[in-house]
Amino acid sequence: MSLLSQHTAATAVQAGIAKSAEIGVKMNIAVVDAGGHLLQFSRMEGAWLGSVDIALKKAKTAALFTLPTAVIGTISQPGGPVYGIEHTNDGLVSFGGGLPVVDQAGNVLGSVGVSGGDVQQDTTVAEAVVQAIVAAH
Amino acid sequence: MSLLSQHTAATAVQAGIAKSAEIGVKMNIAVVDAGGHLLQFSRMEGAWLGSVDIALKKAKTAALFTLPTAVIGTISQPGGPVYGIEHTNDGLVSFGGGLPVVDQAGNVLGSVGVSGGDVQQDTTVAEAVVQAIVAAH
Amino acid sequence: MSLLSQHTAATAVQAGIAKSAEIGVKMNIAVVDAGGHLLQFSRMEGAWLGSVDIALKKAKTAALFTLPTAVIGTISQPGGPVYGIEHTNDGLVSFGGGLPVVDQAGNVLGSVGVSGGDVQQDTTVAEAVVQAIVAAH
Amino acid sequence: MSLLSQHTAATAVQAGIAKSAEIGVKMNIAVVDAGGHLLQFSRMEGAWLGSVDIALKKAKTAALFTLPTAVIGTISQPGGPVYGIEHTNDGLVSFGGGLPVVDQAGNVLGSVGVSGGDVQQDTTVAEAVVQAIVAAH
Repeated sequence: MSLLSQHTAATAVQAGIAKSAEIGVKMNIAVVDAGGHLLQFSRMEGAWLGSVDIALKKAKTAALFTLPTAVIGTISQPGGPVYGIEHTNDGLVSFGGGLPVVDQAGNVLGSVGVSGGDVQQDTTVAEAVVQAIVAAH
Repeated sequence: MSLLSQHTAATAVQAGIAKSAEIGVKMNIAVVDAGGHLLQFSRMEGAWLGSVDIALKKAKTAALFTLPTAVIGTISQPGGPVYGIEHTNDGLVSFGGGLPVVDQAGNVLGSVGVSGGDVQQDTTVAEAVVQAIVAAH
Repeated sequence: MSLLSQHTAATAVQAGIAKSAEIGVKMNIAVVDAGGHLLQFSRMEGAWLGSVDIALKKAKTAALFTLPTAVIGTISQPGGPVYGIEHTNDGLVSFGGGLPVVDQAGNVLGSVGVSGGDVQQDTTVAEAVVQAIVAAH
Repeated sequence: MSLLSQHTAATAVQAGIAKSAEIGVKMNIAVVDAGGHLLQFSRMEGAWLGSVDIALKKAKTAALFTLPTAVIGTISQPGGPVYGIEHTNDGLVSFGGGLPVVDQAGNVLGSVGVSGGDVQQDTTVAEAVVQAIVAAH
């Protein structure tokens, strides 16, 4: 029933580590299944300890709403339509670095969360992980 | 003592599902009693998983203050009179989609929480659920 | 991707309510999907308020381990092999009334949690809900 | 400062997956550093979803006390010297499957948590992960 194999998840995290090394940042990288349950995780040496939880929660957030976490961030600002949504579901992350993975048929395969650099770097690495999952699928 | 029967709650959630289908969204719909305790819940197929918790917390929030969650959102903004109230009561929701249900005599019957669309869609469905409860009462 | 439709979940909870009425108890009945996410819930009038959380956690427990909660209870006793397991996963229930639902091909469809009577009554109703899901599948 | 490299952690989890396959169980395998912070995690396809949290907490437990989780289980029984210790530190696990990793000089390198089989199977796989870390060091 699982749409995302352990092998694919591990390979994709490895691709994320390679991309992180290429752009010179130390990352925490998480992959969860479509239900938000953790499949694979790596913390690179020297990555921020506080980014473990952020990477895990970014992946969870993207899975629970099938949306990039950056989108949640846009609509949850003070005065925005879902201000405070980050306090639901035992904590969401409302800035970039979490991406859902959807195949060409529209099936949700899971999602990815990356934390350790700035938001642009986190997103760049998350995109590399997503691409590796899609390519292997 | 209960002013809101299980049958009425179930019928009202069904009315909310019908309204959701009519406007083309996949919703999570919760009805709680006047004490904030869950009575009835349905998640439509394809609705966001993260909206389960939001629908439950919207209904709880509306019950605990006998106010629409949108009102809580207005007064909990930065600089507002109850800034941060969403961190009380094990988590409240501070945007629209939660509505209290009060009969013509002013009795609180319970409340409704809906999540799965945008805030306007959530509110539209919540209003349909409230109307079904009032009509059955 | 969902193996358990909203319609089936709702019909099955209704079957559980009928069984509860037949044996003369007021129940809380929850159905979750294979990932442990809530699909459908009803509390019968007069059912214990404290059983809402128990029914929800029984369903979650059965989903997370694809085991009846009574089995978790057997092995988590003091001196038992997994003593204290109920404190993981934000709280599990370690007595009967939660049952996984598996189809003939071995696919996990979801699980059921019932609370409101004694453990034998809870289990009787949970079995009725499981049978209704399997029959509709 | 880190005594346990990401490469070693990933290799060791891979050794644990191989051992799990050899004994025919689907495991969740976590490796944390000496501070208890997650380094590497894999969930094998078909492993219990509820074992994600248990594997993570076993590794954390073993790291926080530099003790096998089975030892915590022995001393936390009713009437035992640290009865209830599992409720500290946001949740510990008090049965086997978590092991600290200490090198020949007595340096704590980190710890390992495995969940998915019975306690003996979990311990067998955890030992394989520990051995792989020590061998790579």
